Amino acid sequence: MTTRRNPQLNKNGELIHLLSTEGLSRDILTHILDTAAGFTSVSNREVKKVPLLRGKSVFNLFFENSTRTRTTFEIAATRLSADVINLDIARSSTAKGESLLDTIANLSAMAADIFVVRHSESGAPYLIAQHVAPHVHVVNAGDGRHAHPTQGLLDMYTIRHYKKDFTQLSVAIVGDVLHSRVARSDIHALTTLGCPDVRVVGPRTLVPGDLSHMGVRVCHTLEEGIRGCDVVITLRLQNERMSGALLPSSQEYFKSFGLTPERLKWAKPDAIVMHPGPINRGVEIDSAVVDGPQSVILPQVTFGIAVRMAVMGIVAGNEA
Amino acid sequence: MTTRRNPQLNKNGELIHLLSTEGLSRDILTHILDTAAGFTSVSNREVKKVPLLRGKSVFNLFFENSTRTRTTFEIAATRLSADVINLDIARSSTAKGESLLDTIANLSAMAADIFVVRHSESGAPYLIAQHVAPHVHVVNAGDGRHAHPTQGLLDMYTIRHYKKDFTQLSVAIVGDVLHSRVARSDIHALTTLGCPDVRVVGPRTLVPGDLSHMGVRVCHTLEEGIRGCDVVITLRLQNERMSGALLPSSQEYFKSFGLTPERLKWAKPDAIVMHPGPINRGVEIDSAVVDGPQSVILPQVTFGIAVRMAVMGIVAGNEA
Amino acid sequence: MTTRRNPQLNKNGELIHLLSTEGLSRDILTHILDTAAGFTSVSNREVKKVPLLRGKSVFNLFFENSTRTRTTFEIAATRLSADVINLDIARSSTAKGESLLDTIANLSAMAADIFVVRHSESGAPYLIAQHVAPHVHVVNAGDGRHAHPTQGLLDMYTIRHYKKDFTQLSVAIVGDVLHSRVARSDIHALTTLGCPDVRVVGPRTLVPGDLSHMGVRVCHTLEEGIRGCDVVITLRLQNERMSGALLPSSQEYFKSFGLTPERLKWAKPDAIVMHPGPINRGVEIDSAVVDGPQSVILPQVTFGIAVRMAVMGIVAGNEA
Repeated sequence: MTTRRNPQLNKNGELIHLLSTEGLSRDILTHILDTAAGFTSVSNREVKKVPLLRGKSVFNLFFENSTRTRTTFEIAATRLSADVINLDIARSSTAKGESLLDTIANLSAMAADIFVVRHSESGAPYLIAQHVAPHVHVVNAGDGRHAHPTQGLLDMYTIRHYKKDFTQLSVAIVGDVLHSRVARSDIHALTTLGCPDVRVVGPRTLVPGDLSHMGVRVCHTLEEGIRGCDVVITLRLQNERMSGALLPSSQEYFKSFGLTPERLKWAKPDAIVMHPGPINRGVEIDSAVVDGPQSVILPQVTFGIAVRMAVMGIVAGNEA
Repeated sequence: MTTRRNPQLNKNGELIHLLSTEGLSRDILTHILDTAAGFTSVSNREVKKVPLLRGKSVFNLFFENSTRTRTTFEIAATRLSADVINLDIARSSTAKGESLLDTIANLSAMAADIFVVRHSESGAPYLIAQHVAPHVHVVNAGDGRHAHPTQGLLDMYTIRHYKKDFTQLSVAIVGDVLHSRVARSDIHALTTLGCPDVRVVGPRTLVPGDLSHMGVRVCHTLEEGIRGCDVVITLRLQNERMSGALLPSSQEYFKSFGLTPERLKWAKPDAIVMHPGPINRGVEIDSAVVDGPQSVILPQVTFGIAVRMAVMGIVAGNEA
Repeated sequence: MTTRRNPQLNKNGELIHLLSTEGLSRDILTHILDTAAGFTSVSNREVKKVPLLRGKSVFNLFFENSTRTRTTFEIAATRLSADVINLDIARSSTAKGESLLDTIANLSAMAADIFVVRHSESGAPYLIAQHVAPHVHVVNAGDGRHAHPTQGLLDMYTIRHYKKDFTQLSVAIVGDVLHSRVARSDIHALTTLGCPDVRVVGPRTLVPGDLSHMGVRVCHTLEEGIRGCDVVITLRLQNERMSGALLPSSQEYFKSFGLTPERLKWAKPDAIVMHPGPINRGVEIDSAVVDGPQSVILPQVTFGIAVRMAVMGIVAGNEA
């Protein structure tokens, strides 16, 4: 992709698909966050809904099931006054042997405006974006281990909400980085937004040895990883994605890396604690931290509605 | 729950959750029925819809599958102009080990207005109501063997529609009372509304021996049970909830308790026959009765839309 | 059904249910196509939606799963501003032993306006149409091997769009005619619309020996079948509906009947190629034809939205 145009942008450099936080400029990321700020009156229900996408069709294409993420997109689309079509792709024509691209061509022909795509294969939303009709905008709702850009963006929104200036922050991402599309999307967004100190923290089996090419420091002890941090992002231990005997048990993991109130004291006193959910209480994070005063886990969910509204509103407003 | 405030009411005594017909006053029950009467122009489609809940989000949380009940709530919400989100909870994060309360906290954070909850565990909607954010109203769509209050209320609506004055009525509830949340919800509503003669009727294996504490008479023969009654509510034989060798076969049951046209003559000539559905024809009720002139089984369904509109409209209008 | 009134029409001869293209007059078919033409501004999104069915309830009753067809009806209904209720019938009360007719009576009582019905049993939509309340209109979305009238109508729309005058056309339907409700619906519509030369083409195991009573010529070689044709409709090889050792393998079938660019030259140079989807590339049709200049397969999908809008708009406007 060296000389090719970024598939997320049109020739004016405007966002037409959201596939990854990688490759998006600080201006575009900031525009999304600013737009989301304008929608928080909807996500907190002061305003019930806005007519921005009235009559537009949003198709939820979840090749991999995720009730929670699908629901947040459905709510966001509904509050933009769009019509939402949920496709149970797992049971559909793909099961009759139709190819992904034929399925996509068909759904494009139904005059969809936005495809929200979740897929277990990394890169599937890129492939889809390359083949949809020009009127269709693709939003990646998580692809394999690759990216989960709306989660990354809502994390940025949350950090900005509580900490204002990215250029002064230390952010630690703790846990199963190896399997985490959330970590990847967070890292790209944080470095682009000017965060000078991003650390990934976890055992050697779950955290790659060197991420300096991403502008990230690797720490293999929790104390080193979160010491003096402003933000601690804990990741879900993805038991369901793991395999092999080298991985830690949940109990071992908690013993070394579980975020307890005591350990959280290593971070700054006003550090916030985030988690993308669903939470494994007592595995990557202690219940007392989840429910404690530094946790912003539930506000993340609420901000996520505003961010997804912003993303859909922006891409649908730009022409391929 | 002796000294604690009724969790269904706010401190002004207004309905904020509908969890059970038990503990609701005659005034509140009557208010729901009167409100429902105002919505029958919608449920019979003279009026297509009303804007009462425009922009509000109703989440259907069916931990136990019930297409029929979910559909009636979806229709009722749609006719109030609400947006409905159906969550396929069985396949969602709860399957990834997330706790019920974390799921509920997350969905609350998405700024839902109403949770319609069906759950196989008795009491689950109470637990949820205790933990939702203050802006969320919980409506119980059936929990275990405990309660099914909207069914109870639509039964009351139906009885009042055809028989006017509860204080003059004899009502018989026939069948599998032991497993029936409908029976429990009916009994509480009937006694509160002043019905002087409520009887439960069935074999000893399906009907508790003594319900005098509930103001109910137990009858173990159909003739005694329905003699002179104004209303006969037949219950579904819940084959799928039963277990054990002591229970009657469908054939045995029909032989003793199946409601046939001949036996229906034991009741008053103008008695109405009700059933919550789905019907086992030839088990608890004969086809000739289902389709006969005294059956009000299909009007129950239509009234159910108006009653669910009333319940959602009322709870959403009151502040926690 | 010799002397009985056509169940699709009211006593004024107006369409109240769409069950089959069989038995519909040229006037009615043309009226549907003309109405659909008025909706193409919606299906191509020049116009976002129209308020024709605002507040009406469309129930998608898919007793047989078909995400694609369900989606097209959901989109069509949404663009008419109707409310759509998707019923997961396979998991519903029918699974609890309730009869089809009791299910239908119940759903009628919920004041539905349109039932879109897909069923694996031929004739099920007729049975349903005979038993619904007068305010409910039934649209057949495919029943067994019998009929798929909206597919037939969208095929007619597509043919008329590209070829104008049915009375001058040669149309070949190639493939698994024996198992195809699409073929049956196409044949009835084509002959009614005045098409003088309809051929069905395929191996003896898949194409009935004599269809002269339907006004159709049977051809057992592809060359004879499509020679000089204006329109080639290829059918999906319904592997999932077939059984038995007499049927051709996919490879054998492609060798004799697969539509390749070379073989397509037997048809007229401006012949169009259609397919109802989902496509088995390399079985009934070569990829080069699917993606070639004569293919109108994706426009069929887009026209399908307009046609389904027309059908629902028409039946809902007529009184039983």
